[in-house]
Amino acid sequence: MARSPYRLPKIPEMTIRRLSVYTRCLLQLEEDGVKTISSQDLAERFSLNSAQVRKDLAYFGEFGVRGIGYYVSGLKAELQRILGLDREWPVALVGFGNLGSALFHYKGFARQGFRIAIVVDDDPEKIGRQVDGVPIVASRELGRELKARGVQIAILAVPPEAAQPVTDQLVAAGIKSILNFAPARLRVPRDVRLKHVDLSIELETLSFYLAKGAR
Amino acid sequence: MARSPYRLPKIPEMTIRRLSVYTRCLLQLEEDGVKTISSQDLAERFSLNSAQVRKDLAYFGEFGVRGIGYYVSGLKAELQRILGLDREWPVALVGFGNLGSALFHYKGFARQGFRIAIVVDDDPEKIGRQVDGVPIVASRELGRELKARGVQIAILAVPPEAAQPVTDQLVAAGIKSILNFAPARLRVPRDVRLKHVDLSIELETLSFYLAKGAR
Repeated sequence: MARSPYRLPKIPEMTIRRLSVYTRCLLQLEEDGVKTISSQDLAERFSLNSAQVRKDLAYFGEFGVRGIGYYVSGLKAELQRILGLDREWPVALVGFGNLGSALFHYKGFARQGFRIAIVVDDDPEKIGRQVDGVPIVASRELGRELKARGVQIAILAVPPEAAQPVTDQLVAAGIKSILNFAPARLRVPRDVRLKHVDLSIELETLSFYLAKGAR
Repeated sequence: MARSPYRLPKIPEMTIRRLSVYTRCLLQLEEDGVKTISSQDLAERFSLNSAQVRKDLAYFGEFGVRGIGYYVSGLKAELQRILGLDREWPVALVGFGNLGSALFHYKGFARQGFRIAIVVDDDPEKIGRQVDGVPIVASRELGRELKARGVQIAILAVPPEAAQPVTDQLVAAGIKSILNFAPARLRVPRDVRLKHVDLSIELETLSFYLAKGAR
């Protein structure tokens, strides 16, 4: 039988995002010595929606056991595998100013297997230096360096006006996944996955509730 | 008739988050000179779900006009008002290391009306100095300074081991909204709203697709 390209349902991006959240919840439960948990208890403990949890997980298989719920460690390992967190991802950090430097030292990336393998910055003061053993290279060396280090993901932390030219260089170098911290609208080809991080969105949830309380 | 406490449906936090996203989409449309848009076109253009858009907006009123759709500028202004973005919020930035410094210079906050009014750091080298006109104060001065400046929101960018003690100080000083960038689990009283920002979640959506492609 021919393999159908439609065999898997399209998985919403919000489902992927929630898998990351579930993984963190399961990590906490594991730290707390919890062995099994029902979807109801999981939902209650972390303010999730239990129907949503079941629906999200159902895209990937049948993880619950009747009368027991989920095995915490087993489900965590499964989700990590699904998210590609069972391996290390060498990452390029592009831009080594304030934000780039903060992201370089951000502990959360390495803990999930994202290792910054190369830093890219065109400041002549920085090129050729190393930071914690990681070389800083100029953007014109991008193509060669990314290939040599097997980098498939780039984190963009350059000023807004540099974001598009640098993105074009990354795309030309074969990068298919970009996490953009620059407050700029970027154009990429259809086969490149671009995620935009907007830090002020989180603040807006807070101001919503403050404004609501003041009304 | 007595005012019922149940008169408004509970609004899911994801709805609030999506209002922020819609506001950004409407801003882009406004910049591009678009005057009106249907929920279908809005959804298509920004990869949203049109039923979700209508459901989210329905919590707050009837914004669509039959045969026209939404008025871009009008809806944008309404959503900004709902999100509390029609006013300025003085914010305290706690921690002025790498990440704190990056957040201080992050353009996205000010653009949405979040103005860093005070920086808190216990480094004796930093206390008493100013950064771009904003004073740096010690954490023991928190209570007085936050009150004097009308600060209701704090951004936490301290090392993980300092996060809980600093949070306790913020809570004691009357802060009810905290945006936490420290990779640490924090305990707060029930009336304090704590949002945790985990920058690696965004990377995990990318690794999911890369891992999926490699399978």
